[in-house]
Amino acid sequence: MSGVLYGVGLGPGAADLMTLRAARLIEGAAVVAYPALAGGASFARSIAADLIPADAIEIVMDVPMSVERAPAQAAYDTGAAAIAAHLDAGRDVVCLCEGDPFFYGSFMYLFARLSADYRVEVVPGVTSIAACAAVAARPLVARNERLTVLPGPLPEAELRERIAGAESVVIMKVGRHLAKIRAVFDDLGLTDHAVYVERASLPEQVVCPLAQAPASAPYFSMILLTKGADPWL
Amino acid sequence: MSGVLYGVGLGPGAADLMTLRAARLIEGAAVVAYPALAGGASFARSIAADLIPADAIEIVMDVPMSVERAPAQAAYDTGAAAIAAHLDAGRDVVCLCEGDPFFYGSFMYLFARLSADYRVEVVPGVTSIAACAAVAARPLVARNERLTVLPGPLPEAELRERIAGAESVVIMKVGRHLAKIRAVFDDLGLTDHAVYVERASLPEQVVCPLAQAPASAPYFSMILLTKGADPWL
Ligand SMILES: C[S@@+](CC[C@H](N)C(=O)[O-])C[C@H]1O[C@@H](n2cnc3c(N)ncnc32)[C@H](O)[C@@H]1O
Ligand SMILES: C[S@@+](CC[C@H](N)C(=O)[O-])C[C@H]1O[C@@H](n2cnc3c(N)ncnc32)[C@H](O)[C@@H]1O
Repeated sequence: MSGVLYGVGLGPGAADLMTLRAARLIEGAAVVAYPALAGGASFARSIAADLIPADAIEIVMDVPMSVERAPAQAAYDTGAAAIAAHLDAGRDVVCLCEGDPFFYGSFMYLFARLSADYRVEVVPGVTSIAACAAVAARPLVARNERLTVLPGPLPEAELRERIAGAESVVIMKVGRHLAKIRAVFDDLGLTDHAVYVERASLPEQVVCPLAQAPASAPYFSMILLTKGADPWL
Repeated sequence: MSGVLYGVGLGPGAADLMTLRAARLIEGAAVVAYPALAGGASFARSIAADLIPADAIEIVMDVPMSVERAPAQAAYDTGAAAIAAHLDAGRDVVCLCEGDPFFYGSFMYLFARLSADYRVEVVPGVTSIAACAAVAARPLVARNERLTVLPGPLPEAELRERIAGAESVVIMKVGRHLAKIRAVFDDLGLTDHAVYVERASLPEQVVCPLAQAPASAPYFSMILLTKGADPWL
């Protein structure tokens, strides 16, 4: 019988923001898999580090940072083949995923490759959105409010149009798009209502009004626009 | 010194989908608070039941199910006063919240009442969105895709307009709005791409194509529209 592939959400960074189910699966894992960026350390692995059994087999997927897709595709092809070999041998594989696996997570690339042939179970995780709202003390959405989540790499005109028609807004993947996004918020007169959060839940966490955001943002940063001043009830 | 108010996300229903941090706070709680609907059982309490210390003081906020706001406001006023009394006496209070506290969570009503005067810490939780996507095996958003979250009680015309201009869509609070929402999806030719999920992660969980959704939906139900067939990478 084939093994099961678990896509395990780890939450936004602090180890104790993973779920009990995630912790149990990792503690019992014979094989773990995770992405690492461009030969660097793996953020996902660092979150789970204290729980990974010393004798677990580790599959590292080295994902090159590139706007072209082919190199990353090759990395996931190789990773999926290595995972499949373990599943074929009857071993479960625990794939470590920052945040939630199905919310902008790289686990989706393995899911696309393996879910037709193997049993896959996804363990949902705390998203970076929930974590950023918590550390910024900004309730996200209440009652009949709408939430719009937009990736920062979208073109400026599209960001402007979508933010203008929205209520609560989350901008993911800010990084090198910060200046463009700030310009849009400035144009719309929304800068004073927005908050910038970097590495939520980690010791290096930064939370500040968007107007005071650092000149350059790391990849793990986010902008939240909420109706924070509303008298909800 | 005043106590700390913890708004603790419990995840979507299965007890092991709460975070390690949530579990530790509940196990150590001297005072817990939670909403219960209209004199019925509290869903939040049921998720945490096995971890609540036998000698913990419990503050139940009986929230009447009503479209009028005044009765619920009164319930949160009373709850906030009871919580404040414990905080004033130097006792921490752990408020139990289904899912994530700041994502359509009732904790926001306590936050609005108490955060100016007391230290409040929010422990983010797994949202029902992440849980529903996981059990439906539907990746939500990848790469530069946008996500729109809409509450089912919105007027039909607004739902139609917002869904038409969206990519991935989540409809929360389906319940008695199911027929209206289905009509919108039918009109837009999207019904075959949507999935219906009820009580995700609980034993009574239902997952099915929207076209096969039951005639009447409970409050704890959701509709997901994703680009599931996309070759992500
Ligand atoms: C590839 S996505 C992964 C999202 C993740 N799967 C989740 O559920 O949150 C990476 C983006 O998530 C956001 N992010 C993830 N972790 C974060 C953190 N701890 N603080 C702030 N933003 C974070 C940033 O916007 C980052 O660019
Ligand atoms: C008041 S909101 C609370 C949301 C919660 N704070 C969260 O983070 O998911 C209630 C709505 O969440 C959704 N929901 C919550 N738990 C769910 C579950 N286990 N399965 C399906 N939908 C759920 C339903 O749409 C329901 O109407």
